[in-house]
Amino acid sequence: MKESNTDVLIVGAGPAGHMAMTWFARCGVKARIIDKRPDSRFIGQADGLQSRTIEVFQSFGFGDRAQKEAYHMLEMCFWEPDANGNIVRANRMPDSTIGISRFQQSVLHQGRVESFMRDSVKKWSKDTLKIERPVQATSMKVDESVPESDTDAYPVTVTVKHMKEDVAAVNQYGAKIANGLFRAFDGDGNAEKEGEEETIHAKYVIGCDGAHSWVRRSLGIEMNGESTDYVWGVMDGVPVTDFPDIRSRCAIHSAESGSIMVIPREHGMVRLYIQLAQVPIDPEKSRIDRSKITPELIMDNARKIFSPYKIEMKFVKWYTAYQIGQRVATKFSDSNHRVFITGDACHTHSPKAGQGMNVSMMDSYNLAWKIGHVVRKLAPPEILNTYEPERKKVAQELIYYDYKLSRLFSGRPAVAGKSENGIDTKEFHDYFEKGNGFASGTIVDYRPSILVDKPEVKYLGEGEGDEPYYSPLATKAPIGRRLDTVQVMTQCDTKPVQLADVMPSDGRWRIVYFSGDIVNNAQLMKNAEAISDVLTSPDSFVKKHTPATCMLDSVIDVLMVHASGRWELEWNTIPEAFRPVDHYGRQDYWNVFADDKPYHFPHGHAYEKFGIDPSKGALVVLRPDGHLAKVSEASVDGLKEIEQFFGSVLLEQKSSWKSNGGYLDTGKELEEWYGIADYGSPVLAQ
Amino acid sequence: MKESNTDVLIVGAGPAGHMAMTWFARCGVKARIIDKRPDSRFIGQADGLQSRTIEVFQSFGFGDRAQKEAYHMLEMCFWEPDANGNIVRANRMPDSTIGISRFQQSVLHQGRVESFMRDSVKKWSKDTLKIERPVQATSMKVDESVPESDTDAYPVTVTVKHMKEDVAAVNQYGAKIANGLFRAFDGDGNAEKEGEEETIHAKYVIGCDGAHSWVRRSLGIEMNGESTDYVWGVMDGVPVTDFPDIRSRCAIHSAESGSIMVIPREHGMVRLYIQLAQVPIDPEKSRIDRSKITPELIMDNARKIFSPYKIEMKFVKWYTAYQIGQRVATKFSDSNHRVFITGDACHTHSPKAGQGMNVSMMDSYNLAWKIGHVVRKLAPPEILNTYEPERKKVAQELIYYDYKLSRLFSGRPAVAGKSENGIDTKEFHDYFEKGNGFASGTIVDYRPSILVDKPEVKYLGEGEGDEPYYSPLATKAPIGRRLDTVQVMTQCDTKPVQLADVMPSDGRWRIVYFSGDIVNNAQLMKNAEAISDVLTSPDSFVKKHTPATCMLDSVIDVLMVHASGRWELEWNTIPEAFRPVDHYGRQDYWNVFADDKPYHFPHGHAYEKFGIDPSKGALVVLRPDGHLAKVSEASVDGLKEIEQFFGSVLLEQKSSWKSNGGYLDTGKELEEWYGIADYGSPVLAQ
Ligand SMILES: Cc1cc2nc3c(=O)[nH]c(=O)nc-3n(C[C@H](O)[C@H](O)[C@H](O)COP(=O)(O)OP(=O)(O)OC[C@H]3O[C@@H](n4cnc5c(N)ncnc54)[C@H](O)[C@@H]3O)c2cc1C
Ligand SMILES: Cc1cc2nc3c(=O)[nH]c(=O)nc-3n(C[C@H](O)[C@H](O)[C@H](O)COP(=O)(O)OP(=O)(O)OC[C@H]3O[C@@H](n4cnc5c(N)ncnc54)[C@H](O)[C@@H]3O)c2cc1C
Repeated sequence: MKESNTDVLIVGAGPAGHMAMTWFARCGVKARIIDKRPDSRFIGQADGLQSRTIEVFQSFGFGDRAQKEAYHMLEMCFWEPDANGNIVRANRMPDSTIGISRFQQSVLHQGRVESFMRDSVKKWSKDTLKIERPVQATSMKVDESVPESDTDAYPVTVTVKHMKEDVAAVNQYGAKIANGLFRAFDGDGNAEKEGEEETIHAKYVIGCDGAHSWVRRSLGIEMNGESTDYVWGVMDGVPVTDFPDIRSRCAIHSAESGSIMVIPREHGMVRLYIQLAQVPIDPEKSRIDRSKITPELIMDNARKIFSPYKIEMKFVKWYTAYQIGQRVATKFSDSNHRVFITGDACHTHSPKAGQGMNVSMMDSYNLAWKIGHVVRKLAPPEILNTYEPERKKVAQELIYYDYKLSRLFSGRPAVAGKSENGIDTKEFHDYFEKGNGFASGTIVDYRPSILVDKPEVKYLGEGEGDEPYYSPLATKAPIGRRLDTVQVMTQCDTKPVQLADVMPSDGRWRIVYFSGDIVNNAQLMKNAEAISDVLTSPDSFVKKHTPATCMLDSVIDVLMVHASGRWELEWNTIPEAFRPVDHYGRQDYWNVFADDKPYHFPHGHAYEKFGIDPSKGALVVLRPDGHLAKVSEASVDGLKEIEQFFGSVLLEQKSSWKSNGGYLDTGKELEEWYGIADYGSPVLAQ
Repeated sequence: MKESNTDVLIVGAGPAGHMAMTWFARCGVKARIIDKRPDSRFIGQADGLQSRTIEVFQSFGFGDRAQKEAYHMLEMCFWEPDANGNIVRANRMPDSTIGISRFQQSVLHQGRVESFMRDSVKKWSKDTLKIERPVQATSMKVDESVPESDTDAYPVTVTVKHMKEDVAAVNQYGAKIANGLFRAFDGDGNAEKEGEEETIHAKYVIGCDGAHSWVRRSLGIEMNGESTDYVWGVMDGVPVTDFPDIRSRCAIHSAESGSIMVIPREHGMVRLYIQLAQVPIDPEKSRIDRSKITPELIMDNARKIFSPYKIEMKFVKWYTAYQIGQRVATKFSDSNHRVFITGDACHTHSPKAGQGMNVSMMDSYNLAWKIGHVVRKLAPPEILNTYEPERKKVAQELIYYDYKLSRLFSGRPAVAGKSENGIDTKEFHDYFEKGNGFASGTIVDYRPSILVDKPEVKYLGEGEGDEPYYSPLATKAPIGRRLDTVQVMTQCDTKPVQLADVMPSDGRWRIVYFSGDIVNNAQLMKNAEAISDVLTSPDSFVKKHTPATCMLDSVIDVLMVHASGRWELEWNTIPEAFRPVDHYGRQDYWNVFADDKPYHFPHGHAYEKFGIDPSKGALVVLRPDGHLAKVSEASVDGLKEIEQFFGSVLLEQKSSWKSNGGYLDTGKELEEWYGIADYGSPVLAQ
């Protein structure tokens, strides 16, 4: 039998698996990814892209592709029965909370979304990291005698089967309408099929294998939660209708016939989530008999709910039906932190809030850089312990949110004097509006840990999350959340850029030094020089943590955002640490930014946005996933605190810039000169 | 000998040829394109992308690629000698005039720019239109007995040679520095080489074959103009310098050593245009002996000019040298309007203003849609007569601009009390600033013709162009110029879009109906209904000009921009012409726009920007190239004027929506449903 080693094995190539491999490709981690399905093409299923997801795509360099192709779903309309039982528009509001992100919720089908990630992986891995399919994992053993600290060992052994395409082919799966029901119900089974076996030894394994996770079951992890009796149909097609809001997202509560969610989509399509008033139950399985749920049955329900408006669906691309349930896994890894689960393997819920694909990807986004740090020996394995607490909290909030919203949505509306025990649609609107913050993914808040330096905060209760914590030095940037972006401008060439775009997801930590107005405040300039001296000194902590064969900004990237006018500051007066020169003599011009007005765009007001006082400044530390880890004083003292922080998060390198006394030139031209900033997608003119 | 027919033959695949094929692919025109060079890869040469060029790229759907990859050159700095002869910064200004376009001048090398166009051609032609190379045109005959009106005939016969790659290979051409001098001087010669011959019969031929145009010489067309003695070197590389403005565009006039233009580029590179104080002349050719111009000689000059700052160039990618000259062809076509020349074949000048590639592409952009209209039998051949007057005017303005700027730039600066007869650097700054409008390409103004309905206007003199002409109904949108874009929002789904992005370059004419505030002004709603009635009536002129097998908006696309609040206007009250339903029953939701504030973006103020009164409105006609052709009253009378306009520009179709009494369903699903707007690149969040 074939045997091989890999640093990381990813089981399952849905959105969660794709995101994990995207990180690994970007950071140069030796990883493999397998999926038991023969191909990745499909229609239907997930389509909602939340704000934070697009931010993360942008940080990998393909946010613009999502923005360009996706349908921008900007408005939410609420329709309810009037006194005569006819639906009327009761309310409308922006679908994404205003100001919460530069991106708004969009809609694009999962297949496209996954292909963006594959393209990115192809680029960064130089086409070496590819999904191996159809390959099914069939057995797994973890050698628990290997200590967590031994990062050279391969304690996880997974047996996989390389199948023939035709053996692996999923019969019920495909573009045909008649098979549309398949995917949302049973997964494609976990029956073992014929194939050539291989034994893979891995340092770490990630189970991204979906709701019926084989990895989860192998670890013996349970799911907690419950399900309801509400059954919903879903259908994608081009609507022919006189309903005026068909191109907005709509929640329609009919008086007697149930509810509908309208999701406008790309290519003129619309997705309808349709509550099915009566469904045939299969007595044996005690769940709905899906063979009896036809497109006609679904549309019959839809027509009743839309009445008095007419609706037909043309060019139906896909349909399915599902029952609502909410469940969370009790654990997200084995006890040795060698095998992790992410995505639907950890949590399942209803699709209407458009969360599953997003939260699944964000789980992997949280986990994979940490594994990358450990296998690259940049960080100790302890950082892996933060995965479960950080993401389980999100899963639980998600489950609560979905539970609440599903019930409000599936319930019959209380119409004045008509029905008792109905749900209060006003409560629904309010909950929806409030939930938009959570749904956007931008206010996910991680608790104190070695990766988040803040005091314990107050828990506000279910659906409320934690009280945000702000440093007095940056009174509008909550520690533990992702740092929102803001427009600044390059000092060297006056280009407006989003701060987030100059800090792409490339595995690096960032220290953003808000230096204040160094031109007009002599003390601040002195601080800047002192900070520069520490950073450039022979025993700087940045040098200690950076391998000697890499550029000095490969592990920790230092940026400066000053609050002086751009024209006031002369380039050659900027302290040296912020305009470093490499061993070829090339200067890095792209680490210094002004909080000033560019020629063709409005002022970004970065200091104001983050609540930083330009007469004081601040030092801000960002994790590789963009979450704000720490804020300290803009001084040598503040820098010392940061040194301490990194002391427990990063390892001292054996051959570092510090031990080597500088860069170790191996003669090879560096592939990537970080100095030549690829700003990701630039500020595009509207 | 092989013989074949093609509607259009393009000779030469530089930027001008690429643009012509881009149009033809987009409009489905049967065309071929040949180039005598074996491949298109190269470095160096043109790099400046002007605002209008990026607008046009955007209209083809790849503006975002240029924006993302190009270096945004945003600032211009002027350096001059102080009293001690040291250079100092004398002035700085935005490099692109503020407010003139949503895009600013950018820098990206010609090879990338051409590849964007090839990708677009691949997509739209379904990979059927490809550059045939190495194929050299060797003889051409035009049968002048064929009348211009006979658009079925193939009166141009071109003999071409299909060469072997190695025969065609250009020796002096390549990425090697030592050969860098080649391209800017002699072209690669026009010597005939061995190869298999083919005779191509074409309806039309476009000579896009560069400064030494073989097509131009075949037609016996002369070039008018002159050249100077100033010699300049050009070099691309990564600078190592303490010059503080190295990442801005700079014009440096030294006291005694000549001038330099600094062009910051992508990948940390900079291009230097360096005046060469003394150059070795080859007495036989009476021009400079290029074998003696080495990188060392060029950098020696550069160092003197930069003094007291230091500069070295690392990673030199390319260099060359050239002599300034300005010339324009006396004619741009043969007298039968069968063979045209575009690009460097029509005009040559110095490269420092970054115009050549841009104007070359814009020549083809002006010409190719017209040829497309004629061969698709949408328009009479008379529209081809507008090419020469429209583009020759631009060429002459360009030559004058370049002449003036080159002399101011090459001249020695007059330093107070130091040199006599020096040039006034203030005049240089002013001229530069003024010239930026012209250089951007956005104020190109076409004179009255069958394609531009305006009265004769005053010519303001060389370098000044024509007085812009405004209709009183749209007092800020000059007729004859490209209509600038403005943000509006979709009525159906509240998306902010740039008006230009919903009117891509796809060969269609547009009527933009600024209906005014139809909700609060009953008369305006009546007008809208009356206009809708005319457009939907059986003998509407739109129906007359549209082939029965195409969608009704395939030739003339009608858009509405209203001035009511988006929430005030209910979808079902919009007159039918603006929300048409196709033969499948699908409604087109994307033709109606509100001039209102979107949720997440500022208000676009479209009416204000174009000077249209919301209590009156206007009907605006745009050519397929985005130039404003006509403005008329927003009424049935105004529409009659437009009908008349189209009467002389478009042909009545034999089998039209009018003659057929509606759409002729051929049973084939339409490839492109215009109704499902692909908005091009959307409004991206910053
Ligand atoms: C109708 C519907 C609509 C939805 N709409 C949305 C939406 O709008 N927005 C949203 O965010 N989410 C939505 N979702 C949810 C979303 O599809 C899921 O949350 C998401 O796909 C989960 O991603 P994942 O990678 O965790 O798992 P999956 O996508 O299920 O991927 C798991 C993969 O693992 C593979 N696998 C399983 N076992 C093995 C094994 N033993 N060996 C090898 N490979 C294995 C499977 O073949 C599969 O490819 C929707 C879901 C449905 C059904
Ligand atoms: C140093 C330098 C810098 C420049 N910088 C800029 C700049 O920043 N911005 C800018 O806009 N412009 C710049 N230019 C000018 C720009 O390169 C030219 O204006 C542009 O390339 C002209 O495009 P074209 O398509 O008309 O001709 P070309 O690019 O010259 O293409 C002509 C093509 O025709 C082919 N050909 C010729 N004869 C035949 C034949 N008989 N049969 C088949 N094929 C044939 C040739 O092989 C060639 O590929 C610069 C030029 C130089 C030299």
